[in-house]
Amino acid sequence: MKTKRLTLVTVVAEAVLEPQLCELVKAEGATGFTVTPARGEGSRGLRAGLDGGNVRVEAIVSDTVGEAIVTRLAERYFANYAVIAWLTEVSVVRGEKYLRS
Amino acid sequence: MKTKRLTLVTVVAEAVLEPQLCELVKAEGATGFTVTPARGEGSRGLRAGLDGGNVRVEAIVSDTVGEAIVTRLAERYFANYAVIAWLTEVSVVRGEKYLRS
Amino acid sequence: MKTKRLTLVTVVAEAVLEPQLCELVKAEGATGFTVTPARGEGSRGLRAGLDGGNVRVEAIVSDTVGEAIVTRLAERYFANYAVIAWLTEVSVVRGEKYLRS
Repeated sequence: MKTKRLTLVTVVAEAVLEPQLCELVKAEGATGFTVTPARGEGSRGLRAGLDGGNVRVEAIVSDTVGEAIVTRLAERYFANYAVIAWLTEVSVVRGEKYLRS
Repeated sequence: MKTKRLTLVTVVAEAVLEPQLCELVKAEGATGFTVTPARGEGSRGLRAGLDGGNVRVEAIVSDTVGEAIVTRLAERYFANYAVIAWLTEVSVVRGEKYLRS
Repeated sequence: MKTKRLTLVTVVAEAVLEPQLCELVKAEGATGFTVTPARGEGSRGLRAGLDGGNVRVEAIVSDTVGEAIVTRLAERYFANYAVIAWLTEVSVVRGEKYLRS
């Protein structure tokens, strides 16, 4: 089956930010996302969050949407929150399900 | 240490599908897999699943096995289930442990 | 915003090894890491661990640190433990936060 090149964006942040992060990811163009509970330690010391945990939010998006998401995250959160994010090149089948029509 | 290029296949689906997904991943040639509990929202609306959650299944495989897994998943599940899957190029050391002998 | 190419190192192992793995990852140069609870099945049979689970440890690092981490893991654990690890090329914004100054 033919594969399509897309981008996986992964965000790790304090769990208290989850609703805001999911809103941002969708607002920038993701059609869906996956949330995994996590714990972390980072350059700001323990990324424990107020409620004792981190979340890992993932979405498969176009390259353009991926860059928009990490740019917006950096602008809005990097100065004051323990948020990290990265982009990975991935391949999918039936790529249209990850793109806004 | 010398690294070897392999493929990471990641599948996110309703938790109720976990046994079937793990079976499929092994049947197509994976020597092992990792399962992480998750939650999701997707183009089919909430991917909550009957038992309230999603799973994220990952396996390191050869490129050929990775493509076989996502093709089979698409054929079997994409029409009727909220299943997503992607392939990522990765590097490992001691690559032989991920390949069927 | 300008992106920087870095490496994501992912380690999956028995949960009992978590403190040692996090120590190793930091000792080799990571500035932070994310831990996710997981379950697994591998070429050594069930990777259930003594306390019933696996952990998935992730860190964003330089290419050099990533290779040092997987090499050290292989030397120290692969012969006797169900540890797997892989490196993925990723892109980040504000890359300096992931590198030791």
